[in-house]
Amino acid sequence: MPPLTTPKSGDALFASVERVNAELFTLTYGAIVRQLLTDLEEVEEVNKQLDQMGYNIGTRLVDEFLAKSNVSNCADFKETADTIAKLGFKMFLGVTATVTNWDAEGTTCSFVLEDNPLVDFVELPDTCQGLQYCNVLSGVIRGALEMVSMKTEVTWVRDMLRGDDAYEMRVKLTKQVPEEYPYKDDD
Amino acid sequence: MPPLTTPKSGDALFASVERVNAELFTLTYGAIVRQLLTDLEEVEEVNKQLDQMGYNIGTRLVDEFLAKSNVSNCADFKETADTIAKLGFKMFLGVTATVTNWDAEGTTCSFVLEDNPLVDFVELPDTCQGLQYCNVLSGVIRGALEMVSMKTEVTWVRDMLRGDDAYEMRVKLTKQVPEEYPYKDDD
Repeated sequence: MPPLTTPKSGDALFASVERVNAELFTLTYGAIVRQLLTDLEEVEEVNKQLDQMGYNIGTRLVDEFLAKSNVSNCADFKETADTIAKLGFKMFLGVTATVTNWDAEGTTCSFVLEDNPLVDFVELPDTCQGLQYCNVLSGVIRGALEMVSMKTEVTWVRDMLRGDDAYEMRVKLTKQVPEEYPYKDDD
Repeated sequence: MPPLTTPKSGDALFASVERVNAELFTLTYGAIVRQLLTDLEEVEEVNKQLDQMGYNIGTRLVDEFLAKSNVSNCADFKETADTIAKLGFKMFLGVTATVTNWDAEGTTCSFVLEDNPLVDFVELPDTCQGLQYCNVLSGVIRGALEMVSMKTEVTWVRDMLRGDDAYEMRVKLTKQVPEEYPYKDDD
């Protein structure tokens, strides 16, 4: 018997959610980064705050994702990564990521983004060269995965704001806590 | 001869722009407010910062609005207010506002919002009762109008976060600088 619900396509999923103008979002995010730079002085501190902010957001977004996407349990980290890249990015940012550069163990991979609504109109001034402008995104991934029992480390290895040809974040699974259900699965 | 371009409908306009998930936007905006509350201590200072942030965003958004909406000169403040309510709000937030409570001079009116994506899931703790959570919106209006030569004061008179039945901001035109064109209009 096929599953009662099949996961939606990324396009259907994106069409099914409430949306706001991407430029408004981009400018709002830019305003946060500017505010943090003014308040915190140290670029390294700003990077940490953006990551923490993303983590908090990710722990919330995962609920909306699971509720709307019809995705149920992913078999392994690989399937989870594909789901985030194809459905998660699409549902929230309207773009998809490519999953690539898997290590032999299947516990580390890269998400590559060629289109990133977060950075439209952004140029880093010389004084901010250490800024990880998109740290909110890596934080969101880390926060969302932790809610489904996967502890990860997420780091940026390519960044178009620093002159690279794409955005690439490296996601390393460090610990997977088996989910325990209070009920037996009947499948 | 009819004008070569007619303004788009709000729905067509909203469909024509890049969009992101509203919940992501809401949570991101919530993260800014939380950050400012942590950094600035005084609620009144947070209100000012949110307004200033909105002003800066508004001065940018007006360009996208004029470029995409096919709106050309509005005849007066009344037409401008209607355009913002029906097209501006729709284009950026996906909702429309009602324009109401005009004064006799036609220089002060209210925008009433019944649906406000900024505040989904938000509850103000008792310690934040003076917080004008949506000040970014009034700042956006003020900034955008200033770019089309209308100086305004914008204040919140109803706020659902404080128990009112809708969101209402009062917009008062304080000064209108006639636009001077370097060229003659041929219409």
